[in-house]
Amino acid sequence: MLMNDNKIVLAYSGGLDTSIILRWLIDCGNEVVAYVADVGQDDDFDEIATKAEACGASKVYVEDLKDEFVNNYVYKAIQANAIYEGQYLLGTAVARPIIALRHVEIAKREGAKILCHGATGKGNDQARFELAYMKLMPDATIYSPWKDPVFLSEFKGRTDMIDYADKHNIPIPVSLKKPFSIDENMLHTSYEAGVLEDPSKRYDISMFKKGTHPFNAPNTPEYIKITFENGKPSKVVNLDNGHAVKGPTDIFNYLCNLGLKHGIGIVDMVENRLMGMKSRGVYVTPGGTILYNAHRDLESITLDKEVQYYKKIMEVEIGKLIYNGLWFSPEFEFLMKAIDHSQKSVNGDVEMVLYKGNASAISRSSSSSLYDGAVASMDEEGGYDQTDAKGFIKIFGIRLKAGSKK
Amino acid sequence: MLMNDNKIVLAYSGGLDTSIILRWLIDCGNEVVAYVADVGQDDDFDEIATKAEACGASKVYVEDLKDEFVNNYVYKAIQANAIYEGQYLLGTAVARPIIALRHVEIAKREGAKILCHGATGKGNDQARFELAYMKLMPDATIYSPWKDPVFLSEFKGRTDMIDYADKHNIPIPVSLKKPFSIDENMLHTSYEAGVLEDPSKRYDISMFKKGTHPFNAPNTPEYIKITFENGKPSKVVNLDNGHAVKGPTDIFNYLCNLGLKHGIGIVDMVENRLMGMKSRGVYVTPGGTILYNAHRDLESITLDKEVQYYKKIMEVEIGKLIYNGLWFSPEFEFLMKAIDHSQKSVNGDVEMVLYKGNASAISRSSSSSLYDGAVASMDEEGGYDQTDAKGFIKIFGIRLKAGSKK
Amino acid sequence: MLMNDNKIVLAYSGGLDTSIILRWLIDCGNEVVAYVADVGQDDDFDEIATKAEACGASKVYVEDLKDEFVNNYVYKAIQANAIYEGQYLLGTAVARPIIALRHVEIAKREGAKILCHGATGKGNDQARFELAYMKLMPDATIYSPWKDPVFLSEFKGRTDMIDYADKHNIPIPVSLKKPFSIDENMLHTSYEAGVLEDPSKRYDISMFKKGTHPFNAPNTPEYIKITFENGKPSKVVNLDNGHAVKGPTDIFNYLCNLGLKHGIGIVDMVENRLMGMKSRGVYVTPGGTILYNAHRDLESITLDKEVQYYKKIMEVEIGKLIYNGLWFSPEFEFLMKAIDHSQKSVNGDVEMVLYKGNASAISRSSSSSLYDGAVASMDEEGGYDQTDAKGFIKIFGIRLKAGSKK
Amino acid sequence: MLMNDNKIVLAYSGGLDTSIILRWLIDCGNEVVAYVADVGQDDDFDEIATKAEACGASKVYVEDLKDEFVNNYVYKAIQANAIYEGQYLLGTAVARPIIALRHVEIAKREGAKILCHGATGKGNDQARFELAYMKLMPDATIYSPWKDPVFLSEFKGRTDMIDYADKHNIPIPVSLKKPFSIDENMLHTSYEAGVLEDPSKRYDISMFKKGTHPFNAPNTPEYIKITFENGKPSKVVNLDNGHAVKGPTDIFNYLCNLGLKHGIGIVDMVENRLMGMKSRGVYVTPGGTILYNAHRDLESITLDKEVQYYKKIMEVEIGKLIYNGLWFSPEFEFLMKAIDHSQKSVNGDVEMVLYKGNASAISRSSSSSLYDGAVASMDEEGGYDQTDAKGFIKIFGIRLKAGSKK
Repeated sequence: MLMNDNKIVLAYSGGLDTSIILRWLIDCGNEVVAYVADVGQDDDFDEIATKAEACGASKVYVEDLKDEFVNNYVYKAIQANAIYEGQYLLGTAVARPIIALRHVEIAKREGAKILCHGATGKGNDQARFELAYMKLMPDATIYSPWKDPVFLSEFKGRTDMIDYADKHNIPIPVSLKKPFSIDENMLHTSYEAGVLEDPSKRYDISMFKKGTHPFNAPNTPEYIKITFENGKPSKVVNLDNGHAVKGPTDIFNYLCNLGLKHGIGIVDMVENRLMGMKSRGVYVTPGGTILYNAHRDLESITLDKEVQYYKKIMEVEIGKLIYNGLWFSPEFEFLMKAIDHSQKSVNGDVEMVLYKGNASAISRSSSSSLYDGAVASMDEEGGYDQTDAKGFIKIFGIRLKAGSKK
Repeated sequence: MLMNDNKIVLAYSGGLDTSIILRWLIDCGNEVVAYVADVGQDDDFDEIATKAEACGASKVYVEDLKDEFVNNYVYKAIQANAIYEGQYLLGTAVARPIIALRHVEIAKREGAKILCHGATGKGNDQARFELAYMKLMPDATIYSPWKDPVFLSEFKGRTDMIDYADKHNIPIPVSLKKPFSIDENMLHTSYEAGVLEDPSKRYDISMFKKGTHPFNAPNTPEYIKITFENGKPSKVVNLDNGHAVKGPTDIFNYLCNLGLKHGIGIVDMVENRLMGMKSRGVYVTPGGTILYNAHRDLESITLDKEVQYYKKIMEVEIGKLIYNGLWFSPEFEFLMKAIDHSQKSVNGDVEMVLYKGNASAISRSSSSSLYDGAVASMDEEGGYDQTDAKGFIKIFGIRLKAGSKK
Repeated sequence: MLMNDNKIVLAYSGGLDTSIILRWLIDCGNEVVAYVADVGQDDDFDEIATKAEACGASKVYVEDLKDEFVNNYVYKAIQANAIYEGQYLLGTAVARPIIALRHVEIAKREGAKILCHGATGKGNDQARFELAYMKLMPDATIYSPWKDPVFLSEFKGRTDMIDYADKHNIPIPVSLKKPFSIDENMLHTSYEAGVLEDPSKRYDISMFKKGTHPFNAPNTPEYIKITFENGKPSKVVNLDNGHAVKGPTDIFNYLCNLGLKHGIGIVDMVENRLMGMKSRGVYVTPGGTILYNAHRDLESITLDKEVQYYKKIMEVEIGKLIYNGLWFSPEFEFLMKAIDHSQKSVNGDVEMVLYKGNASAISRSSSSSLYDGAVASMDEEGGYDQTDAKGFIKIFGIRLKAGSKK
Repeated sequence: MLMNDNKIVLAYSGGLDTSIILRWLIDCGNEVVAYVADVGQDDDFDEIATKAEACGASKVYVEDLKDEFVNNYVYKAIQANAIYEGQYLLGTAVARPIIALRHVEIAKREGAKILCHGATGKGNDQARFELAYMKLMPDATIYSPWKDPVFLSEFKGRTDMIDYADKHNIPIPVSLKKPFSIDENMLHTSYEAGVLEDPSKRYDISMFKKGTHPFNAPNTPEYIKITFENGKPSKVVNLDNGHAVKGPTDIFNYLCNLGLKHGIGIVDMVENRLMGMKSRGVYVTPGGTILYNAHRDLESITLDKEVQYYKKIMEVEIGKLIYNGLWFSPEFEFLMKAIDHSQKSVNGDVEMVLYKGNASAISRSSSSSLYDGAVASMDEEGGYDQTDAKGFIKIFGIRLKAGSKK
């Protein structure tokens, strides 16, 4: 798809790839609006904007999506205890929908009909972007250079790109020399590709861009109390020094810093990409891990037993949907109606201890607790008639006996 | 149910409760065979046997179930990644079926028609024992004193029991003074009841009978390699000192000791009992946690993506079945046929680091690995045509577009 | 539980059993309020009220629950496509919650603390009533005579009951001589017990109290069009004669009569009761079957593919919950939030043909249809690029190839 | 992909499309082996073979797959009660795997590396063929002309094809004039496309190639008894005339004829294709419907309650897998291990009545029946203690009460 004379909105990161794409699209005769999404990655956005202009962008949008990201995406994922393949807290996957949503909003504002992103043809992100575009702007044309034979024939490898960059005065970032690639946002930092592609090779604990490994975390545990309202954190108190934090984004940042300090939320795993191939990644999700553990713990006293059971199955599904780029889909909306409802009773406090990679709940309480000490107690009757259990089990066993007599 | 002139097989622990039950059944005119199951709890079985005889048992069976427990119960649960409510590795629940199975075998050998156990009417264990009895010996009579109004009227509280014990020279164990109750076997030690019944009260890290809390674990990490065959561990090598361990039980004990040393596998949670009430427990599952993490990690490269997905849902169900006492049930057998089949390819090595409560996989390899470095790679093509992804996503999005145009 | 001096609200049917219970409770010294629920069974409610008074009821409530039953229970079950074990449309189970709800309301109005029903100890209805009572009035005392040893010892069999009835001038209904028992409401008529208890014995097609068997149904098909709004029927037109019906209850009654005329909705099945034993029943659900088929058909064009998939799984669960008496439960509410949401787009018309037991959709259309003729067409391109499918399938097959090369 | 000098095995139907493909591939310089699969479609296979040769095939294989199709595919699907979206008995989808399997076997025998089929780029069959090829012969090249831009540019519409056929003396079949398209095999006949593409248009009951519509079916019901062994039919007896049929294929053909005679198994539905678009089809599955109903009925007395529950959920998944072309997949094999196991107890007899579109079970019996008349009976005690139910329900309701007091 060689295009010219179009207006294109490009999701621009400031890196080599999207800089080349930006310049090349212009060379092909198009107008390109650069859109930079700030979801908390550690970047100099002024510098990125300047770079986009230098590459020829007709306009640059730098969008601060952090508050909305935390409140409407990260916290929703935590309410759902969304997790992929038992371990991955979906740090990249949760950020993609909001990036795509703003992308579409800008395209509509700019009257552009073409959306372009720089995700590769092997990864999940292309699907996360494109499925969101299709849902949110079904008549848009999606241009994905890494799946365009014309673009691919021009840029067959790193050498072609570096040559092109040199020729067009596009600065080549140092990160090119990194032995792996990094994705970063408020929720997590991921390390993939390069030397990590051999799943039998241990990762180097010095590779972490931020935070520390448990080996190097403080020897002293730190205690915090997290208060939840409707399944979202509304307050964190540091129990060691009394420091209190409020407001969705501040709470999240505070917990991220604590998590980074204590080496919390590192996962080294092999996952199955949407496309079916297996892929190895190392994820660091410091604040998300603390919140996930705390939230799940609070649910244990505030959700009904059978709601927990059905929600547990849904969590597997919701994690899969988010991973596969289906945040904006009818089925996500369908399942989230139940999840949203369940969170009305998830109110209360959880105390956590943070220590060398561990983020463990040690106390939980709630005004809407379903825990009934008297009924549960092994020491008192609590209105429970033990002989009832006899009938319960006998009836429970009727079909077992029936089957056994055969 | 006041019985006399019957032959009863009693599951006897040596504790105060079953000693009183034993004696009382004899007083009522019955013959009682005492059956002591050794599933690895830290007990003096000779002493227990002597005590049973002193209480009047006509015969005492002390059954060493450890090897069978590890190989046919613990390892099967690990193959299924069985877990209850996201956290509990089912230490007590996995031991109950084998205890009940041998109980039934002894009853048959002894020609006894009555099975008696000392589990209370509020807990899960009564169901785990009785459902197994019903399945394995449907014509047996189950006698559960804690659900018998006659017994209950005689023993209304601790005082009645202590009086009765004094009167019959039954020694009162020191453990009565414990502020909580403990269940122990090879797989785990659990701490429940008493002071732990308030879920907002933190547990005391000095309460652990065995092992250590992460706070007190060594400052030096320890590296091991676990080899699996068909989803069961067949070898462990300590990578720090080269020490190798083989044989199902030896491997398990070795990993338990390592886990205890490094404070691994402690869970403080509120769970939903089969009977529906919520209950707080602290579980320590040292070797089980190491194996669970290693096994799941190896599955990530040896199981097909969609098999992993279906297995993940089944794991929730299997965990629930085991918890609810349905190990010997048609539905457990039904689901386990699929699980068993899946384990044929779960072969290979996982390297783990153990450090202050963490048991993390850091390397995994397998001769039956489905990981294809070339296809996964972000750096090479690997026979993957990136433009295929375009069609994939476009088709994936057809229904999203259709819905969106409405 | 021999009670006296209490105020009891009894769910009274007018039959022999509840008449005896009513009288006996009074004999025991209690005040009894009789509550008769009209859910569309073919009864003379004046006569029943008179009978209750004759038996000594201090007050009689005859409650017409029909409109509410249809609109808030039957139609909700149809929105969920709720079905038990693949066949049973839950005719009895859907009626129990509303009967129990009004029971509780009357008890509260009357200041009564005791709720009594006449369901037996072997069936599902006891659970449906009692679980609803527990949820809606957790402090109520439930009195279930058929599970009360005192009552049972007094009434050991039919003879005792007939003697008691004779002695107290309680009329003995003819239905006693029926070779099976019938439950009837607007949604269905069920035939169980007696001669039907042998699942290998065919039922007699002349046994049906209402309607006809397909063998005897008209030889001429009848065509209707059902309009749905938000998943509920809002209009039915008879396409043969142009007759139009509106209003929830009128629509339902009209469809029931059509269904009865054409022998629609007869199911002869063996089901698993909540208690675990298998049970044979013959159910006739004429209008419900027509609506179920029509509703499911309309969903096929108005619900997204993946929503249909998740809803299908939920339908199995919701059917089970309703069957088990858990209409008023947190998990039912949880799942129904998703179902309710899904029904917003279930608008449109379905044409059905009714003929000798068949109720088949033959045409469906909707302003919110997701059916896209151009994309679906095998004759035109419709904006679909066939070569996209190549990439789709190749990527879909990546993991299959990976597994196959092993 | 313009190929030459290759050896290609083409799945050849004898129709216009595959005749053109056959000829065209030869014109491009390839050797083509024609493979004709006989899965029971009503064709003259000698004529088809002659036609293939006339088109230039170097060799023609006509493979009779009927016995294997019935025994290893149709009956397996029935054991699983496999069904897609609640209605479609998967007639086409179940035939594709065996066709693909033999295709691969022939390619291997012939030393050919290229597999070619004539399925279009919009339908499901392309995926069913290609996914099977990928699994069974991962190194094969798949050539699908309808997704090849070169082929597509040459054959832009029907006119191009007819011109090409004329030029190469390829006979143009009458079926081209059909207002819809038909797929036929032993299990079903499907009617799709053309005038059926408008889901609001009723189908014409005279369109059926075989069998009759219920309107025209006999006025007299017919009674049969089907005997199952391990979930597969082993004998059918016509209860009206005593005629008995044995042997898998004979049984199936006999039931198909009966079904066709009585208008059984017609489904008019809109389904979701794998590709995501909705599609309308009319399916006639006469013998399959009788067997499905009979098999499910027999399971109701021979499968444990909870096995039935888990199997019901699996059935939805297995139906989806078969529909999506994943018969040869690790996840199908995984789930089928459980299904296979469950069928060991599915032995016994089911009596069915066939009448004007209805195929209803009216009697079922089994030597391994789990139905316990005494326990189920409402008239006798049967070893069931009604007071047990009291405890059962009270305990069942504990969590409901706990939640309600909030």
